[in-house]
Amino acid sequence: MKKDIDFSIKRLGKAIHLSPLENINFVDDNGKIIYDVDYNNIVANHKNISLEKMITLEEAGPRERLYFNPEKVVAGIVTCGGLCPGLNNVIRSIFMQIHYQYKVKNIIGFRYGYRGIYQNSHPGPMMLTENDVEHIHNRGGSILGSSRGSSDPVEIVDGLEYYGINILFTIGGDGTIKGSIAIEEEIARRDLAISVVNVPKTIDNDIPFTSKSFGFQTAFSEAVESIRCAHNEAKGAPNGIGIVKVMGRDSGFIAAHTTLAQKDVNFLLVPEIDFDLEGPDGLLVKLEKRLERSHHALIVVAEGAGQKYFENVDEKQDLSGNILLNDIGVYLKGKIKSYFAEKKIEVNIKYIDPSYIIRSVPANPEDSVYCGILAEHAVHAAMSGRTRIIIGNWNARFVHLPMDVIQYGRKKIDPKGALWQSVLLSTGQPTLK
Amino acid sequence: MKKDIDFSIKRLGKAIHLSPLENINFVDDNGKIIYDVDYNNIVANHKNISLEKMITLEEAGPRERLYFNPEKVVAGIVTCGGLCPGLNNVIRSIFMQIHYQYKVKNIIGFRYGYRGIYQNSHPGPMMLTENDVEHIHNRGGSILGSSRGSSDPVEIVDGLEYYGINILFTIGGDGTIKGSIAIEEEIARRDLAISVVNVPKTIDNDIPFTSKSFGFQTAFSEAVESIRCAHNEAKGAPNGIGIVKVMGRDSGFIAAHTTLAQKDVNFLLVPEIDFDLEGPDGLLVKLEKRLERSHHALIVVAEGAGQKYFENVDEKQDLSGNILLNDIGVYLKGKIKSYFAEKKIEVNIKYIDPSYIIRSVPANPEDSVYCGILAEHAVHAAMSGRTRIIIGNWNARFVHLPMDVIQYGRKKIDPKGALWQSVLLSTGQPTLK
Amino acid sequence: MKKDIDFSIKRLGKAIHLSPLENINFVDDNGKIIYDVDYNNIVANHKNISLEKMITLEEAGPRERLYFNPEKVVAGIVTCGGLCPGLNNVIRSIFMQIHYQYKVKNIIGFRYGYRGIYQNSHPGPMMLTENDVEHIHNRGGSILGSSRGSSDPVEIVDGLEYYGINILFTIGGDGTIKGSIAIEEEIARRDLAISVVNVPKTIDNDIPFTSKSFGFQTAFSEAVESIRCAHNEAKGAPNGIGIVKVMGRDSGFIAAHTTLAQKDVNFLLVPEIDFDLEGPDGLLVKLEKRLERSHHALIVVAEGAGQKYFENVDEKQDLSGNILLNDIGVYLKGKIKSYFAEKKIEVNIKYIDPSYIIRSVPANPEDSVYCGILAEHAVHAAMSGRTRIIIGNWNARFVHLPMDVIQYGRKKIDPKGALWQSVLLSTGQPTLK
Amino acid sequence: MKKDIDFSIKRLGKAIHLSPLENINFVDDNGKIIYDVDYNNIVANHKNISLEKMITLEEAGPRERLYFNPEKVVAGIVTCGGLCPGLNNVIRSIFMQIHYQYKVKNIIGFRYGYRGIYQNSHPGPMMLTENDVEHIHNRGGSILGSSRGSSDPVEIVDGLEYYGINILFTIGGDGTIKGSIAIEEEIARRDLAISVVNVPKTIDNDIPFTSKSFGFQTAFSEAVESIRCAHNEAKGAPNGIGIVKVMGRDSGFIAAHTTLAQKDVNFLLVPEIDFDLEGPDGLLVKLEKRLERSHHALIVVAEGAGQKYFENVDEKQDLSGNILLNDIGVYLKGKIKSYFAEKKIEVNIKYIDPSYIIRSVPANPEDSVYCGILAEHAVHAAMSGRTRIIIGNWNARFVHLPMDVIQYGRKKIDPKGALWQSVLLSTGQPTLK
Repeated sequence: MKKDIDFSIKRLGKAIHLSPLENINFVDDNGKIIYDVDYNNIVANHKNISLEKMITLEEAGPRERLYFNPEKVVAGIVTCGGLCPGLNNVIRSIFMQIHYQYKVKNIIGFRYGYRGIYQNSHPGPMMLTENDVEHIHNRGGSILGSSRGSSDPVEIVDGLEYYGINILFTIGGDGTIKGSIAIEEEIARRDLAISVVNVPKTIDNDIPFTSKSFGFQTAFSEAVESIRCAHNEAKGAPNGIGIVKVMGRDSGFIAAHTTLAQKDVNFLLVPEIDFDLEGPDGLLVKLEKRLERSHHALIVVAEGAGQKYFENVDEKQDLSGNILLNDIGVYLKGKIKSYFAEKKIEVNIKYIDPSYIIRSVPANPEDSVYCGILAEHAVHAAMSGRTRIIIGNWNARFVHLPMDVIQYGRKKIDPKGALWQSVLLSTGQPTLK
Repeated sequence: MKKDIDFSIKRLGKAIHLSPLENINFVDDNGKIIYDVDYNNIVANHKNISLEKMITLEEAGPRERLYFNPEKVVAGIVTCGGLCPGLNNVIRSIFMQIHYQYKVKNIIGFRYGYRGIYQNSHPGPMMLTENDVEHIHNRGGSILGSSRGSSDPVEIVDGLEYYGINILFTIGGDGTIKGSIAIEEEIARRDLAISVVNVPKTIDNDIPFTSKSFGFQTAFSEAVESIRCAHNEAKGAPNGIGIVKVMGRDSGFIAAHTTLAQKDVNFLLVPEIDFDLEGPDGLLVKLEKRLERSHHALIVVAEGAGQKYFENVDEKQDLSGNILLNDIGVYLKGKIKSYFAEKKIEVNIKYIDPSYIIRSVPANPEDSVYCGILAEHAVHAAMSGRTRIIIGNWNARFVHLPMDVIQYGRKKIDPKGALWQSVLLSTGQPTLK
Repeated sequence: MKKDIDFSIKRLGKAIHLSPLENINFVDDNGKIIYDVDYNNIVANHKNISLEKMITLEEAGPRERLYFNPEKVVAGIVTCGGLCPGLNNVIRSIFMQIHYQYKVKNIIGFRYGYRGIYQNSHPGPMMLTENDVEHIHNRGGSILGSSRGSSDPVEIVDGLEYYGINILFTIGGDGTIKGSIAIEEEIARRDLAISVVNVPKTIDNDIPFTSKSFGFQTAFSEAVESIRCAHNEAKGAPNGIGIVKVMGRDSGFIAAHTTLAQKDVNFLLVPEIDFDLEGPDGLLVKLEKRLERSHHALIVVAEGAGQKYFENVDEKQDLSGNILLNDIGVYLKGKIKSYFAEKKIEVNIKYIDPSYIIRSVPANPEDSVYCGILAEHAVHAAMSGRTRIIIGNWNARFVHLPMDVIQYGRKKIDPKGALWQSVLLSTGQPTLK
Repeated sequence: MKKDIDFSIKRLGKAIHLSPLENINFVDDNGKIIYDVDYNNIVANHKNISLEKMITLEEAGPRERLYFNPEKVVAGIVTCGGLCPGLNNVIRSIFMQIHYQYKVKNIIGFRYGYRGIYQNSHPGPMMLTENDVEHIHNRGGSILGSSRGSSDPVEIVDGLEYYGINILFTIGGDGTIKGSIAIEEEIARRDLAISVVNVPKTIDNDIPFTSKSFGFQTAFSEAVESIRCAHNEAKGAPNGIGIVKVMGRDSGFIAAHTTLAQKDVNFLLVPEIDFDLEGPDGLLVKLEKRLERSHHALIVVAEGAGQKYFENVDEKQDLSGNILLNDIGVYLKGKIKSYFAEKKIEVNIKYIDPSYIIRSVPANPEDSVYCGILAEHAVHAAMSGRTRIIIGNWNARFVHLPMDVIQYGRKKIDPKGALWQSVLLSTGQPTLK
C-alpha cells in the first residue's frame, strides 16, 4: 500500500546561505505536492484520516536558502549503467546550472561510472570546463563514459574525500541508486557533509512515482523506425513475419508507446501481460490465422516478456545486478519457425533487435528540454542540502523522492488501464491465453 | 481568480446504454481530479472552505453507461483553422476508436472546416472508411482539409440535421471552440440530442488548463532545425546575426522550448516579457556588445513579441478572428540593419521564418501517441453524452473541460517561473529594459 | 579481358511504330558510348586495332521508332530477391512512364517474385492503377512483395502467355537476372515477341559495368547511423569495442562508403582485402594497441569479409542461389572476446547488425531521382524492342547492357585504387597481415 | 564550340620530390580523360581531325613526383561566398590528407573569406589542428566563416607571402574562382611558387564541365522537405496553392531534382525554360484549370526563373558580383493572388522560401564522401605543382580543369534533354507559352 511509503526527505543540515539566484520565484522550502489527485479518494480518506496525513511529495525547485556555500562547493558527476539518450544533456545542464547560476567553480567528471571515483582510477577524472560540455547535447552516449559493476562504497567515499567533493550527482537507474544509497550510508557513517543526488535514468520508464524518465521518449521514437522497417519486411515477403525486440526488462512501456505511435503492430508482448504460445488461443495459432487473412504479421516483444518459457532460468546477473534475461526474441523466432515448418506453411521471418541503435542516439528535442529541467532541479536540491534523493515528476510537477522508493518495485503497465486498452485497440490482438 | 471558474460539464441526458467495451476499467462517471495539487494551499483553503468546494475537473475516460446507442450513432469530424502536426492522427484515432470499439458504422468527414458541414458545400463530405485513414498518421496536414472563416451556426446545425449527425468532433483552437459553442447553443435551441466535443488544437500550446496540446512538441522539435541552421549562418559570416521567427501569438512556448532544446540562442523575445530595442539596456546595444565579444549572435522571436512597436496597430483580423499581427521578425531585421548601418558596423543578417515548414510536418512519435489518447477520450466523452466540452490534460490526467474556459484567456509563460528561468540560464540574456 | 566481352544488344525485331513521345530529343537508335575514356589507352589501342573495334556500350534513351504498338502492349512488373530501398520508386516510375508517356493501359504487378507469374499463383497479380502507386515512393519495401527461390521458366512463360504480357520488367539482382535469362531463352524457344528488361537491384553496388545501383546510396547513408551509435557505445564503456556488420557479400562498397561518410571507423574489413586475426600484425594485436592508446575502437565488417576463417564452409545456398555466408560479425565478436579474456583485459563489446533496418527504408531523395531515371530507360528500351538487357550507368551515361554481363563477376573494390586509399586515410588502419 | 576550349593545365615547375604516399597506384602524370564519350562523334571527328586532337581533360589523382617538398609546405585554406553543405567536410579532408598523407605540418585556416588573408585581418587566421577539425563534418556552415565581397589580389598575395603560404586552397564558386584567377596572376607577376587550387562550390550545380558539385545533393534533398510541407499546406485549404522558391540563379537543377525526388509538384519554373503568366496558355489560366480539377496545386520556382517580368531590372550586384535577382517567388505570389481576387475565386496561397535552411545543414552521407574525394584530389594536384585549377568530375572521373573554364558560362538544363523530359512527365505540366 502506498500509504505506508515514507516520502520524507533527508537534509544535511540547516540552510543558512542566501541563494545567488536572482529574479526568481523561490519555492517554499516546505512545499509539497499531494500524491493522489482523485477527489473522491480524498473525500473518502478524509473521513478516516486527517488532512495532515495526506500522502505528499516534496516539491522540487530553487530554495532561497542554501545549505552549501556556493563559493566553496566542489561538485562531482558520474554516469553509470547502460547508455541512454540524454546523458550528455544532463551532464551539460548540471554543469551550466551549478556553474553559471550558483557560481560553483570546480566541477569534476568521473570516468566510466562509480569506479572512476576511486582514487587511482584510470583514466582519472576530468575537471570539466564549458568547452568540454558546450556541444555535447547534440551527441549520443556519455562523454564521461559509463560502466556496470559492483563498487565499493568505502573506496568511493575515500575518493570523494580525496577529491574534496561536496555534492555527488549520480546519473543512473536502479543499480546506480542502490549504489548511491550505499555511498550515502557510508558518508553518514563518517559524518561527512556530502550530498548525493540522483537523476534517475531508466530507458524503460519504470522508476516508481515518476511519470516519465529522460531518454524514454527518444527511445520509443527511435524504435518506431525499426517497427516501420519490420513492417516493410513483413509485407515484402510471402507470409512475412516481422519480429522486433525492444527494451523493457520488467515494464513494456517502450513497446507499448512504439505500438501506439506507429500502429502497424499486430501482436504486442510485454512482461506485465501473460501470454501462451501453444493452445488454441496461443500466439502461434492466432498468428497462423492472421497470416491466412493478411499474408503478413508484425510482432513486437519487450525483452522481459515471456520469461516463463525458460524453464531453467538460472539467475545469472549482469554486473549491475540485473538478472540476465533469456532472449525471448530469439526464442520466439525459433518457435514460430518450427511451428510453421511442421505445418509445412512457408513463412519468412525477419528478426530485428535494435537495442544499441536506440539507446545511443542523441536526445530528441523534447528529451533535451526535459533533461535540462531535471538537471536544474538536481542542482537546486543538492545546494539546499537535500541528500539521498532522486528527482521525480508526479502530477506534472517536479518532486524530490527519497532514493528508498526503489524498494517499492518498478512502475508497470496496468493490464486494465487506459494504456493497455489503447494498445489492444491499435493491435486488435486477442487475449492470447 | 480560478476559484470562480465553473468547471461543471454539460450532459445531453441520462446514460442508459451499456458500453460495448470489454476487459476495461471504466472510469467512475463522477470521477474528478482536483485542480490544485499544492498541499499547503489545500490545507490553507480547507480552513475556510469545505472540502466539498475544492475546485475539481471531471476525469476523462470510458464510461460503463452511454447516452447514445452506438448502433445508431452517426458521427462527424471536422478540422478547422491552420494546420498543426497531428490532425490526421486525431482523425484516424477518432475513427478507429468509435468504429472498432464502439461499433459505430457511419463516420462522416466534413471537408475544409465548418463550411463543409453546410448542406450544399463543395466538395461534399466523405463517408470515411478504414482504407481512407489507415496510413494517414504518417502524413502532415489534414486529409479533410481545413479553413478559417466565420460560419453560420444555423446553417451548420441545418447540415448536422441533414446528415443525421449525433456527435460532432471539432478539431481546432480558440476560434473553432467559439464556433463550437455557437453550434452547441443552436443545437440546444432546437432541443436536439447532438453532442459537440472538441479536441483542442493550438500549436502555441496556450489552451488554458491544459498542460500540453497536440502538435506542440512536434512543432518546437522542428523549429530546432531552423535554430541550428540560423546558428550556422550566424557563425558563417562576419558579425553574422541569425533571426528566427517562430509561432506564438500570445505565448512564447514554442520559442522557449526550442531555445531550451538547442541552447544556441543568445536572445529570446516572447510576447509575455516586455523588451526595449533602444536605450543602453535595449536589444540593439546588447546585441552590439555580443557581436564585439563573439562576432555572431542568434535571436529567436515569437511572432507575438514586441507588438508595442507598431504604433498604428490596426486591429485587422484574419478569418478566424485572430488579430493580424505585424511582422516583428521583418521589423527587427530592419531595425538591426539600420542601427548597424548608422554605426558603420558590418553585419550579416540572415532571417528565417519557418512557420509553414513547422506546422505541416507529420506528428512525431510522442505526439502521435498523445493524439491517439486525446481522440479516444473525445470518443468516450461523446458516447457518454457529454457536450460542449474540450479534452484537456491536467495534473498528468486527462479531463473534460467546458468549452467556456477559453474565455479565461490563454496559458502564458510566467516571467518569474521555472521555464523562463531556464531560458535565461540558457541564453545568458540580460533584462533588455 | 574486357575486350572479349560482347556488349551487343538483342532486339525482338524491327522498330516500325512511331513513338508517341513529344517535344523530345530522341536518342540515335545506334547511339554508343565508348567503354574506356582513358585517352592514352585509346591512342595505344588505336595503333593496333581499328577505331571501329573500340569497345562500346549501347546508349539508353527514348527511340523515335518503337517495336511495340503502345496501344496493344500489356506490361508486367515483378520484384525479386531481398528488399532494397527504391523498389517502390522503380515500380512507380515504370508505371508512370509507360502509362502516361506511352499510353499503355494494362500494367500488371506480379506478387512475391517470379512465382507470382505462375498461372495459379496466390495471391494473384494486381492490375495496377495510378491510385495504387501514387504515394508509394515514400515507403520502403515493395508493394508487390518479393521472394527468393528457384522458378521454372516454363511455368513463367506459360504465365506470361496466359496474361498476354508483351513486356516483362524484372527488378532484381544476380539471381533475378539469371532467372530473366532463362525466361528470355524460353521465350525465344517459343518464338514469342516478349521483351524482358531488368532494372538491376544490388544494394551492394556490385553489378559489373554499372557505376551505381539504386538503393546503394540510401543503404550506406542509413548505415552511417549505426556507425554513429556504435561509436557512442564504444566510447561509453571502458575499452568499448563497437562492431558493425553491414551488407556486402562480395564487395565492400557499403562498408567503405559508410566509413568515408562518417570517419569514426578504426578498422574496416571487406571481402576484397585479406586480413589476419592472429599474429603480430593481425587485427587482435592491433586492436589491443588501439585500446591502449584510445580506450575504445570501432570496427566495421562487410558480411562477406574473412570467410577464410570458416574452415568447413559448407556451400549452402539460399533460395536465390547465394552461398550462405558464415556470420563474420558474430565470429569476430567471439574471437575478440576470448582474446581479451585470455589476456585478462576488460573489454566491452557492442555488436550491431543493422541489415534489415538498412534495406527496408524508403529511398532517399537522390535514390528516388535515380530510380526514376532507370525506370524510364527500362521503359524506353522495352518499347523499342530491346530484350535480355539490364539498364546500366557507365561514364555518367545510361546504357543498355546484355544480361550476360553478369557472368563476368561482380564489381569490387580495387585494393590499390583511390577508394581504398581514402579508406586507409580515414581509418588509419595498418595492413593487418 | 567546345572544341575551342583550352583545357591545358598550368604547372609551377618540374615535379622532382618523391611522393611520401605508400601502397598506392599513382596516376600517370600525363593521364587524360576524353571529353566526349559518344562513339559516333568520335568516328565522325576522326575523319577530319587526328586522334591527337581529341579534346581531353587532365586526370586527377596522386602523382609519384611532387613539385613541393612536403616537409616545407605551408598550406592555407579559405572559404568564400554563401554557405553550402559540405564546406566543413572539404576543410577537414584537405587538412587530413595533406597532414597525414603528405606530412605537411603547417595548415592555416583564413577567416571569413579572402579578406581573412590580408595581413591585418581581424580575427586573424587559425593554425589548424586535428582537434579543430575532428568533428566538423557533422556540422553545417564553415568553421572558418565566409564572406562575399571584392578583394584586392595585391593585399592577398602580400598576405600569402607574409604567412609563407605555398599552397592556397580556395573553396568557393564563380566569384571565388574569378578572385583565385586574379590572385594567381598576381602570384605569377611576382614570380612566386604558390599554387592556387579551387574546390568548386556551387549549390546550384552549375559549374561547367563538372557533373556534380558538392552540397548540391544535400541541398535538393533538404528542399524535398519543403515540397512535402507545401504540398500538405496546399491540400489542407480550399484551393490551396503552395509556392516554394528554391535556389538556382541561372540553372534549375535543384528545382528539377527536388521535383523528381518528391513528385508532388504540378508546375516547375526554371531559368532555362521561358514561360508566360498571362494568356490562354500561361501559368495563371493553367493554374485555374488545375484548381478546378484538383482543388489544390503546388508550384516550385527556381530563384532565377521569370526574370523577364522585372522590366526595370537594375543591374544591382551583391558583393560577390552576382546580379541581385528580383524575387520571383514574391512576385508570383502577388500575381496569383490578384488574378484570383479579380475572378473572385477563393485561393489560399502558402509561400515558402527555405533557402537558408537548405544551405546551412550538414552534408548528407553521399556529399560527405564526395567532399572528401574532391579535397583529396585538390591536395594531390597542389602538391604536384598544378595551379590555377579547379577539381572537376567528368565522365564519372575526377579531373583538373583550368579555372578559365568559368568564362564558358554555367551548366544548364537542356530543354530537350532527358532531365527536363522527366520533369514534364512528373509534373504533367503544359508548355506555359
